[in-house]
Amino acid sequence: MGSISDWETMKLAADVLDDLQVSYEKKIVSAHRTPDVMFDYAETARERGINVIIAGAGGAAHLPGMVAAKTLLPVIGVPVQSKALNGLDSLLSIVQMPAGVPVATVAIGKAGAANAGLLAAQQLAVHDDALAARLEDRREKKRAEVAASEEQLV
Amino acid sequence: MGSISDWETMKLAADVLDDLQVSYEKKIVSAHRTPDVMFDYAETARERGINVIIAGAGGAAHLPGMVAAKTLLPVIGVPVQSKALNGLDSLLSIVQMPAGVPVATVAIGKAGAANAGLLAAQQLAVHDDALAARLEDRREKKRAEVAASEEQLV
Amino acid sequence: MGSISDWETMKLAADVLDDLQVSYEKKIVSAHRTPDVMFDYAETARERGINVIIAGAGGAAHLPGMVAAKTLLPVIGVPVQSKALNGLDSLLSIVQMPAGVPVATVAIGKAGAANAGLLAAQQLAVHDDALAARLEDRREKKRAEVAASEEQLV
Amino acid sequence: MGSISDWETMKLAADVLDDLQVSYEKKIVSAHRTPDVMFDYAETARERGINVIIAGAGGAAHLPGMVAAKTLLPVIGVPVQSKALNGLDSLLSIVQMPAGVPVATVAIGKAGAANAGLLAAQQLAVHDDALAARLEDRREKKRAEVAASEEQLV
Amino acid sequence: MGSISDWETMKLAADVLDDLQVSYEKKIVSAHRTPDVMFDYAETARERGINVIIAGAGGAAHLPGMVAAKTLLPVIGVPVQSKALNGLDSLLSIVQMPAGVPVATVAIGKAGAANAGLLAAQQLAVHDDALAARLEDRREKKRAEVAASEEQLV
Amino acid sequence: MGSISDWETMKLAADVLDDLQVSYEKKIVSAHRTPDVMFDYAETARERGINVIIAGAGGAAHLPGMVAAKTLLPVIGVPVQSKALNGLDSLLSIVQMPAGVPVATVAIGKAGAANAGLLAAQQLAVHDDALAARLEDRREKKRAEVAASEEQLV
Amino acid sequence: MGSISDWETMKLAADVLDDLQVSYEKKIVSAHRTPDVMFDYAETARERGINVIIAGAGGAAHLPGMVAAKTLLPVIGVPVQSKALNGLDSLLSIVQMPAGVPVATVAIGKAGAANAGLLAAQQLAVHDDALAARLEDRREKKRAEVAASEEQLV
Amino acid sequence: MGSISDWETMKLAADVLDDLQVSYEKKIVSAHRTPDVMFDYAETARERGINVIIAGAGGAAHLPGMVAAKTLLPVIGVPVQSKALNGLDSLLSIVQMPAGVPVATVAIGKAGAANAGLLAAQQLAVHDDALAARLEDRREKKRAEVAASEEQLV
Repeated sequence: MGSISDWETMKLAADVLDDLQVSYEKKIVSAHRTPDVMFDYAETARERGINVIIAGAGGAAHLPGMVAAKTLLPVIGVPVQSKALNGLDSLLSIVQMPAGVPVATVAIGKAGAANAGLLAAQQLAVHDDALAARLEDRREKKRAEVAASEEQLV
Repeated sequence: MGSISDWETMKLAADVLDDLQVSYEKKIVSAHRTPDVMFDYAETARERGINVIIAGAGGAAHLPGMVAAKTLLPVIGVPVQSKALNGLDSLLSIVQMPAGVPVATVAIGKAGAANAGLLAAQQLAVHDDALAARLEDRREKKRAEVAASEEQLV
Repeated sequence: MGSISDWETMKLAADVLDDLQVSYEKKIVSAHRTPDVMFDYAETARERGINVIIAGAGGAAHLPGMVAAKTLLPVIGVPVQSKALNGLDSLLSIVQMPAGVPVATVAIGKAGAANAGLLAAQQLAVHDDALAARLEDRREKKRAEVAASEEQLV
Repeated sequence: MGSISDWETMKLAADVLDDLQVSYEKKIVSAHRTPDVMFDYAETARERGINVIIAGAGGAAHLPGMVAAKTLLPVIGVPVQSKALNGLDSLLSIVQMPAGVPVATVAIGKAGAANAGLLAAQQLAVHDDALAARLEDRREKKRAEVAASEEQLV
Repeated sequence: MGSISDWETMKLAADVLDDLQVSYEKKIVSAHRTPDVMFDYAETARERGINVIIAGAGGAAHLPGMVAAKTLLPVIGVPVQSKALNGLDSLLSIVQMPAGVPVATVAIGKAGAANAGLLAAQQLAVHDDALAARLEDRREKKRAEVAASEEQLV
Repeated sequence: MGSISDWETMKLAADVLDDLQVSYEKKIVSAHRTPDVMFDYAETARERGINVIIAGAGGAAHLPGMVAAKTLLPVIGVPVQSKALNGLDSLLSIVQMPAGVPVATVAIGKAGAANAGLLAAQQLAVHDDALAARLEDRREKKRAEVAASEEQLV
Repeated sequence: MGSISDWETMKLAADVLDDLQVSYEKKIVSAHRTPDVMFDYAETARERGINVIIAGAGGAAHLPGMVAAKTLLPVIGVPVQSKALNGLDSLLSIVQMPAGVPVATVAIGKAGAANAGLLAAQQLAVHDDALAARLEDRREKKRAEVAASEEQLV
Repeated sequence: MGSISDWETMKLAADVLDDLQVSYEKKIVSAHRTPDVMFDYAETARERGINVIIAGAGGAAHLPGMVAAKTLLPVIGVPVQSKALNGLDSLLSIVQMPAGVPVATVAIGKAGAANAGLLAAQQLAVHDDALAARLEDRREKKRAEVAASEEQLV
């Protein structure tokens, strides 16, 4: 993520990955304040054994797209909710990438961060049946929660 | 895709996959007109050996999210440019998924469709070095095109 | 509705129906978390004697449109106010349906939910004079409230 | 509808109703230019045997909401695509009604007009099995068209 | 205004008129809940000696435009800030009037209400030199306040 | 108006004034290119016998608000449709004036320009019964046109 | 700035300039309330030795553009976050200037104000190596803060 | 600029600089396709004697912000009008920079590009009286054009 202030959002992604027993590293790398670190991080990610990168940023959110420009790993972008424009700027800055350099964009804010974790896991699960089973369990639990929540309809 | 009218956009994805020698099937499955076909398609996709699904739709674009609700494969959503609102409705309908069911959303229109093809290929390339090499070649060609295009600056 | 969190909004619809003595059932059915339950619910609604369905959802709000794809009963969609985009995403996801599958969309949030209840009652009242009379009484009371509220103009 | 210029959009609703053998009357009644005619029309609609009203308008589109203020019949509003703002103004002017006076809003433009016709028919079909059967036939035809359109995917 | 809840905004207009010694009447007249009262009010306003009408409303704000459709007096519309869309719906519903029926629209919310009072006074002041002088005094005071406020720049 | 390119829009205002036999002067005065001329024009307008000013501009449209800052005459602002943002920028730049300096804003583009002419005439007609009669005739003609246009509904 | 209420935002610019030891004057000059002061200020700025002007305003924010119309010094515009539209109106009113009169626009709100200070300093630093060194130090500190903030990722 | 397709817009900047006899270099450097070239370009710009950088890009427009992250020279960003969202995405991606790394943003499209050239010249003219004189001449010509254009008001 680009700033410690994004952590409140991005830890939802970490929580999902913990829950699904997917190992990951978490780092603060700013496109604008530490551009060289970002380039180095993105360029060496594949050789360090990383399979997918989740990048969250807000406002003129350049981190996901610039990381995607420096690696061929799939990059998932999380638009962090911004102060003035509620994340619409973050969303457009991340999703409207030109042909050639895709970013897999998820929803604005915490729901998006959680889904970034899930999406990463779903990609890994294509070749990992145990993880696929854990994902299926998770969905089953959510299904059960919907049914259970009806009792609160009063 | 949800309608034959989306093909003008979605064939950009097919072109990229052809170019990268990635095999795929292309189908018209409408969330609203053929919902049962859609559910069946999504539910059986994994067992039929599919690794990633690209779904394009416009307006109240429900296809990518509903496919994602019925499979644990990664789903990439392409917001097709709509008539009145230029695809802003398509984009929000696809990207703003609730926690639990992610859709990897790309840009509105043809650039997004091309990137959907690339993103799918990048996911596959994590476990396919030959494909990774073809992706790297493709990027290299694009880099060369940038340099070459400077001659037209007159 | 798609989630227990929508109940705060959707109970305004229930209140109106209670007030007008219209019987109804209330359920939590999620397009994304319980898609099969949703399809089953929509598909069998008519034969179970239901005359109109009110569906509320937020964000990438697919519930109303997907229910409408599975039944020929009139479906009323309530855009629940979302966190980042204040329900603009919910509204566009519900109202911008393609030709062939309409959703009768009302305003974002609680006013919309109350109006969904009224709209359902107005549909039923076409063939129910007693209900029509109760609706007319309700309007008359609102008219009187406007006149009475002038005393507070100080 | 509010103006002859809306007819290009609104005749899609008429076409659907013709197709479904639903009888209707079509009129130009302007909220702003002929307000008294509008009030009279709305006030007497029920006693003239009308069951549902479709009102289309663009820009500051007041026709659907004002008709709804003068009748207890269900009113369906069609946001006609406007010149500068592409119908976003029409949509918000129609859908954002205050609690007490609902308008069943459909999509911007021609798809919305066609859906207004369908929605009206679906309301009538709750008490008209023959119409319900024609609606089901229509859906079946659309399903078949989706399958047939796959041949054009080249 | 259309509702007592608008009074918090609209009393800014009343304050300005009080301050400028312009006499006025204040009323709650709802386009949607008391349409006949509204029509009657607008239709008879000129003969009752009214020179300009200020109408404030929120959401699908039809009051200013409908009043304007029933009188040839100048009508000033105040877009009251709405809950979900912050008054953007109110603004577009008021300002985007079709050719033939103008509404003089001011800013969203309290600043707009105050300006509606001023605008009404400025119209009257064209033929009222004493009022013009009071308006000039008011501007002069505001000028002085700007200069004085610089002391707070610490 | 601020530029000769605005004339295509603003002549609709001139046409209405011609039609209503209201005398006027038309000038190109740019807030950004000829600011001193603009200030001089606005400052002396009242003493030159002008009763109301119509100002049209597009994009960052400062002309109406700056004229209003330099005169106590009522100022009507016309948002000219801009190239990239379709006049949304023009509208917000004109209508969102701070408390103290109102601009009577009309719709984006040609309908707005025509309405600016009408609004000016309506202000003048408060003290001019002959003009009021011409305005009433004009409305009557528009009413008749609505009725006549029904013949084209085929 | 246009109002004392803008100071909460604009002092971020002052803080940056203080931090970088750049001398400046701060003034409240309102485009709408004190237009003559504004013109005088802008017209004489260059001869008084000023090198760059920072102007902040909100809503229909005319101050930056009007100052730019009266001077050839570079003008930096800060869109102050507005109440109803969160600064989108401020941004468009400042940035969408017509060809001929540029305003260097920065982000909405406090981040934009801080950046206005930095941008002014960067312009001055082109001819001031000591200031350039202080700017480089500042960036270095920010880089270090990013690295240091990783410790908070728990 | 980021792509040869941006040249149609960006040559307006070049035209202005030619007209003002300001020397410059023009290059195609893509943030996403040639990120290393971009970094190298930005990092060495100051030592190569460059005083200000103009960067134009569309969609998820990262070029201006990323150049600004790698240099302390002032960077002017031009939002190129994009296909689906008309440059609103370009504008927000460029202007909404976080505190610490400013981009001087101008209007969307060709007017913005022309103004980028002017803004660069105005910055240089602070220390270049001959250039300042040419800028003043240019403004004077534009003033004369406004007056001359009045003859076309027919």
